[in-house]
Amino acid sequence: MEVLFITSNEGKFREVEKIGRRYSVEVRWHREEYFEPQASSLHEIARISCEILSKKIGKPFIIEDSGLFIESLMGFPGPYSSYVFKTIGNEGIIRLMNGIENRKAYFLAIVAFFDGKDIHIFEGKTEGRISEAIRGNKGFGYDPVFLYGEKTFAEMGDEKNEVSHRRKAFEKFFRWLGKQG
Amino acid sequence: MEVLFITSNEGKFREVEKIGRRYSVEVRWHREEYFEPQASSLHEIARISCEILSKKIGKPFIIEDSGLFIESLMGFPGPYSSYVFKTIGNEGIIRLMNGIENRKAYFLAIVAFFDGKDIHIFEGKTEGRISEAIRGNKGFGYDPVFLYGEKTFAEMGDEKNEVSHRRKAFEKFFRWLGKQG
Repeated sequence: MEVLFITSNEGKFREVEKIGRRYSVEVRWHREEYFEPQASSLHEIARISCEILSKKIGKPFIIEDSGLFIESLMGFPGPYSSYVFKTIGNEGIIRLMNGIENRKAYFLAIVAFFDGKDIHIFEGKTEGRISEAIRGNKGFGYDPVFLYGEKTFAEMGDEKNEVSHRRKAFEKFFRWLGKQG
Repeated sequence: MEVLFITSNEGKFREVEKIGRRYSVEVRWHREEYFEPQASSLHEIARISCEILSKKIGKPFIIEDSGLFIESLMGFPGPYSSYVFKTIGNEGIIRLMNGIENRKAYFLAIVAFFDGKDIHIFEGKTEGRISEAIRGNKGFGYDPVFLYGEKTFAEMGDEKNEVSHRRKAFEKFFRWLGKQG
């Protein structure tokens, strides 16, 4: 089986290609930038992006979007995680959380699949806490401030891939795909 | 002369209607929610939204978008000012700026006009600084943390309307419109 993955991020494509192989799915890279809408949830953003792209692409494909959601900051940076990372970065997150007791946060990944007719959404979530300081250098993005147990994602290295939100979302999708006619 | 203003915000419509009257332009309200794309600049967001809407509306209209840009935070919250306000709010801005010396910031408003064929962009900018604390209760949004001279926008009341970014952008547009055939 073959699936088109639309992303401009090669690293993301390589990661998903690997997961796909375990499910006997060949993930092919369709490199394309697309405009994501502004919306209050990742689900909505993925669904609308998928709808817009479906008119352009016309055949089955998947897209993926993910974000960090901090409970005491009303879900911030959430759907805008990428922009927030590029501007205030992990240092900004640490400042915003300074002295705040409730440090609960989660990473969320959404996979949207267009089957040529309908859109199907798959979700992967990993819960943790925001660390008191930036720690570790093995990950990327918010990994150095996301505590999973006693370590940050950036201190975990390959262990992280076993529990990551992206992996969970894609595994759900590949399992579902395997059950389809 | 008559111009359609597409916005879901009645307050914004009323403000612009008033400015229009001084230029003998009747601003009519077209209440419609539309999806804004995620992009790195307000210009780009306004232009793309305008393009998408033009296909749907098919006749001349204006839209407006605005944001707060903080120099030492790489322009944050910028194009996502509205989402950032709803989550971390002015308290978050004060935290992020705690101890930072360079407090320069500006408000930017973009008006995009579709004339039935082409898109024209008008910009209004007002420079100021981020205050050390939340001050004043006359404004809305980021007004209580935006210092214009010695007062915050939220301490200025009606004076603010004389120097606001939105007023500047719409005045440029109305003046330009008056010069068209």
